[in-house]
Amino acid sequence: MAEVKAKAKAAKLADPMEASIEPSTQEMIRRAQQLNIETVFDRAVTMKPCAIGLQGICCKNCAMGPCRLPLPKDGIQGEDTRKGLCGATANTICARNFARMIAAGAAAHSDHGRNVALTFLEAAKGTTKDYKIKDPAKLIQIAPYFGVATTVEEDGVVKDRDLQEIALAVAKKAVNEWGKPSGTLDYLKRAPQPLQDKWIEEGVMPRNVDREIVEIMHRTHMGVDQDYKNLMKQGTRASLADGWGGSMIGTDLQDVMFGTPSPLQAEANLGVMKEDHVNIIVHGHEPLLSEMIVAAAQSQELISYAKEKGAKGIQLGGICCTANEILQRHGVPPAGTFLQQELAIITGACDAMIVDVQCIFQNLANVAKCFHTKLITTHPIAKMEQDNVIHIEFDEHHAMEDAVRIVKMAIDNYANRGAEVIIPRHKTTQIAGFGVESIKYHLGGAFRGDYYTLNDNIINGRIRGIAGVVGCNNARTKHNEEHITLIKELIKNDVIVLTTGCSAIAAGIHGLLTPESAAVHCGPGLAEVCETVGIPPVLHLGSCVDNSRILLAATEVVKAGGLGNDICDLPAAGSAPEWMSEKAISIGQYFVASGVYTVFGYHMPLDGAPEFKNYLYKEMEKIFGGKWDCEPDPIKHAHKMIAHIDKKRAELGIDKARERVLMDMADRQALGVE
Amino acid sequence: MAEVKAKAKAAKLADPMEASIEPSTQEMIRRAQQLNIETVFDRAVTMKPCAIGLQGICCKNCAMGPCRLPLPKDGIQGEDTRKGLCGATANTICARNFARMIAAGAAAHSDHGRNVALTFLEAAKGTTKDYKIKDPAKLIQIAPYFGVATTVEEDGVVKDRDLQEIALAVAKKAVNEWGKPSGTLDYLKRAPQPLQDKWIEEGVMPRNVDREIVEIMHRTHMGVDQDYKNLMKQGTRASLADGWGGSMIGTDLQDVMFGTPSPLQAEANLGVMKEDHVNIIVHGHEPLLSEMIVAAAQSQELISYAKEKGAKGIQLGGICCTANEILQRHGVPPAGTFLQQELAIITGACDAMIVDVQCIFQNLANVAKCFHTKLITTHPIAKMEQDNVIHIEFDEHHAMEDAVRIVKMAIDNYANRGAEVIIPRHKTTQIAGFGVESIKYHLGGAFRGDYYTLNDNIINGRIRGIAGVVGCNNARTKHNEEHITLIKELIKNDVIVLTTGCSAIAAGIHGLLTPESAAVHCGPGLAEVCETVGIPPVLHLGSCVDNSRILLAATEVVKAGGLGNDICDLPAAGSAPEWMSEKAISIGQYFVASGVYTVFGYHMPLDGAPEFKNYLYKEMEKIFGGKWDCEPDPIKHAHKMIAHIDKKRAELGIDKARERVLMDMADRQALGVE
Repeated sequence: MAEVKAKAKAAKLADPMEASIEPSTQEMIRRAQQLNIETVFDRAVTMKPCAIGLQGICCKNCAMGPCRLPLPKDGIQGEDTRKGLCGATANTICARNFARMIAAGAAAHSDHGRNVALTFLEAAKGTTKDYKIKDPAKLIQIAPYFGVATTVEEDGVVKDRDLQEIALAVAKKAVNEWGKPSGTLDYLKRAPQPLQDKWIEEGVMPRNVDREIVEIMHRTHMGVDQDYKNLMKQGTRASLADGWGGSMIGTDLQDVMFGTPSPLQAEANLGVMKEDHVNIIVHGHEPLLSEMIVAAAQSQELISYAKEKGAKGIQLGGICCTANEILQRHGVPPAGTFLQQELAIITGACDAMIVDVQCIFQNLANVAKCFHTKLITTHPIAKMEQDNVIHIEFDEHHAMEDAVRIVKMAIDNYANRGAEVIIPRHKTTQIAGFGVESIKYHLGGAFRGDYYTLNDNIINGRIRGIAGVVGCNNARTKHNEEHITLIKELIKNDVIVLTTGCSAIAAGIHGLLTPESAAVHCGPGLAEVCETVGIPPVLHLGSCVDNSRILLAATEVVKAGGLGNDICDLPAAGSAPEWMSEKAISIGQYFVASGVYTVFGYHMPLDGAPEFKNYLYKEMEKIFGGKWDCEPDPIKHAHKMIAHIDKKRAELGIDKARERVLMDMADRQALGVE
Repeated sequence: MAEVKAKAKAAKLADPMEASIEPSTQEMIRRAQQLNIETVFDRAVTMKPCAIGLQGICCKNCAMGPCRLPLPKDGIQGEDTRKGLCGATANTICARNFARMIAAGAAAHSDHGRNVALTFLEAAKGTTKDYKIKDPAKLIQIAPYFGVATTVEEDGVVKDRDLQEIALAVAKKAVNEWGKPSGTLDYLKRAPQPLQDKWIEEGVMPRNVDREIVEIMHRTHMGVDQDYKNLMKQGTRASLADGWGGSMIGTDLQDVMFGTPSPLQAEANLGVMKEDHVNIIVHGHEPLLSEMIVAAAQSQELISYAKEKGAKGIQLGGICCTANEILQRHGVPPAGTFLQQELAIITGACDAMIVDVQCIFQNLANVAKCFHTKLITTHPIAKMEQDNVIHIEFDEHHAMEDAVRIVKMAIDNYANRGAEVIIPRHKTTQIAGFGVESIKYHLGGAFRGDYYTLNDNIINGRIRGIAGVVGCNNARTKHNEEHITLIKELIKNDVIVLTTGCSAIAAGIHGLLTPESAAVHCGPGLAEVCETVGIPPVLHLGSCVDNSRILLAATEVVKAGGLGNDICDLPAAGSAPEWMSEKAISIGQYFVASGVYTVFGYHMPLDGAPEFKNYLYKEMEKIFGGKWDCEPDPIKHAHKMIAHIDKKRAELGIDKARERVLMDMADRQALGVE
């Protein structure tokens, strides 16, 4: 602790107002600085990113390097002769780095999915008592994609098949998707047929989840694939194995075990923590343990135990996607986004922070050292080296037992709080828990229960288009600013927003996830739809693996008709304004390869290889109908997406309808004869 | 070509005498410089490696970075407070980078193994006519490890099972090793029992090949595993999946399809190319296509075709491990090591260079442009972006057809040679093609055919110990110098050397692979054994995937008795003096985790994280009996290995025997009473 403080004192500190647009974050950064506790915001000021790495042209894939190519000066004149020791060009190096980001991102999502599938297999076998089939309808819905029959014929009579039997068959097939030795992924057939045809033509149908990730690692090894287009073919294949494979199976089986989300009300932001309650923060991505913690924390027994220990109750809160998982299914409020993880401890009121996998700062251990907070790692693959971190390894065979033990530890720690607890008062109300099914229900209306009404509103122009805004925070950008400015600009222009991940948490914190926000922020068309249907203009679709829900929602829109035959025909665009993780690159690539124009906000490590960049930003559209783009200015970013949406509307011949909706009397008069 | 030349002219050039100890290499570097053609040796002079990357403390695993930690100054005083934006410590960053090297290396080897297994499956099914079972004995030998019966009982009589049936069963089981959803790898049971017990205790038994690689990518993702010991647990697991999995299966099934190598004589070095022959160089690692090219190039039809075109015949040569594969099975001479690949083209006599995967310079395309050489990529996962590269995609269903087409293309290109062909005259004679079986035969003697005689000679001290010297060249070290100086020092001290990869090619080029070299270079004990048995003191065991042969040879030594119960008990050590590729790190780790003291010659990217380095260099020995080390000076390097060997001899109580062997009369007199 002494060193942490000394360091913060000596170093340049972050300006809270420059670091975030969010008041409780600003407040807590200030608080941290008072306490001489260094946070990620300070480190972003003191640590400069590597200029060569930022351009994507540092290659450390063999020990003759690391080779750092010179930056391309004012556009390369003549032939580009920059190369590494082996001769790898800027394109090769940049594409290798990009592909390895996809490999790591796809691995993270899919490994999460695998753990879910393996736990589901245990549940189906009955070898764990804590996990059950909570949503049989979802199981029956997905079974056919795995080739699992949901009915049986007995003596000429067709009957429903035993649920546990279906579950076991689905589980076995699902688990097999990670390593089956032949064929291609079962879920690919859920995509629109023209998209599947494209994938087949391009040779990018994933064979199984793991193989595609491993093949990226082989291809990017020194002296293997040295053709950026060919490298990206594999990058695409692995990303599809994530989006239409590992992630999608993960989402579905989580829904089967924990229930498919449906809209519910909750709060958001650091202000959800309560001074007189035991505050437990769960942080990470896999909900296998946190589902149990929710149950434990809500149990009368443990609430009573908390009261015995002098607290008024137990307040659970989430950070990152674990937050989204337990928000969408249980209404547990998120306490913050990725960049607020240290701040939750700095309140002094966090009695335990329980982390699983992904996006967890190792610095949490240093911050926790300055407080009474118990920092508990729970996953066998994610430990921390620091001494003050407690590891309680989660095991699905005694999941509830682990959860109870952890919650008790937090309660016991309540008495150890330091004198000064400062919880920012800021919190908001939000509606979360949308999904493919609930969009159908809400936007389709009670009668039809179909995507037709949504399509109809897009065709008639009330809704201009659909945007997926997802992804991380990044300490190199102003916390939440791009998310919020972008989303506001989109809905102002009648673009309905589907959101996941930290973007969704940010939208919740900034009050955009309420039906009431429509009247304040939306254009007239979208406002009208939201008001009629009673939904927010920004729909929270869950965690990062739940981006698969966006893919499936887009597919439903295609199926409902009137907006083309493929995802790339839709007036839709994707965005990750403040991306940070390699998972975002995998997500971006599977969206692009599914036909979506995808704009990232924060800098992409591509400038060192203009030709490769051009391939992603232009050429790829000819192959998949989707392409990459990058725009740091959130207003311009929004208008790039809107321009694409308008282009698609024009191609669909629905731009006229759109124009009519927005015309006022002056416009009409100006039109003259028409 | 203009740019290549211009660049070379402007840039600082390599000093040939400083670049390599090998005369033909020096000659061809000079030749390249006369022609203004830039080679890797020149680039090594002009491109400086990144100082932070070299220390292993650059983290680009998320877009808040790349974070470059400061170098530890004079050993960190007090607590080490260096960290990345997320708080990742030097240990975490360095271990992540190290683990990702293992992931890429294991992926490269194992993906090669997978392709072999898939082709073997086709052969077993009879769906390809070009691949057959050439070595039924090997098939029958390995079948039990896969749980495949080699006999059947019919009416109470035990009969041999149909070979094709065994092949199909083995193929199916083998292919499944990459992705089976439960259990652990079948081949692990080939290891000595105490070693298996250690692996079980440490929780590092690989579950399947791909999963372990993917899990590294997940664990090294931002915010997952932040405990270097835990990261290395997974690194170990993935490396074992390579050495005792993907690589070992690859080697075995190659032996089944192409024949288990046995000692044969061949030549080595650039001088194997012939001015009046069509010269074809095969380069890379997977022998699936090159096996066919050997057959095609030896066919009377194509030899006649070459003669029609004015050549005296067809000269095949190899580079890197493809060279080793066709050397050990067909006596095709290697034309050079990794660092000589550009030089083979610069002779002006290379009519076609056919490359498959791994360790192929992208700069070959630039060099080939300056000559008539057809540069042909053949593997779907390894293309080059340059226009002058021809891609002929190899397909196991018409492998021979592809091979004939490629050889014909080379023959047709013979007429297009430029005026000046300069082939260095240097070439040597060598004996290659050793393996577990042939060591048994040669060292065990005709009567016993066992490792006992080898063990006996180790126990009686004629052979002091066993060294595995393997791995790459690296343009940052003087070409071949460390390999050759080290090997000579080892055999001078009566340590028998098993070698693979570019180290084996280097040993061949420098004349160490002949029985005659024993009298010149060996200590008296080893010289005596070599002379008696008629073997070289340095045994060429094949390619880099064939390092699995070293593991199995070590296991045979353990089994033969008298030298302890586990690999870590043996007076043995491993080395990769001029390592360059990520595969070397995977190999190193599986040797360490198999109990071998493993010394690398070229700099390891660990200095930025002293604690992690200490874990690899010291602590790991307590877990697995093997540990890492690094020593750039080849003489000191040899003596570190010898010291370890002597330590093991002492532990086994055979140091006395050893001393006796080396004592001369003066020593005896000095001993006095005894």
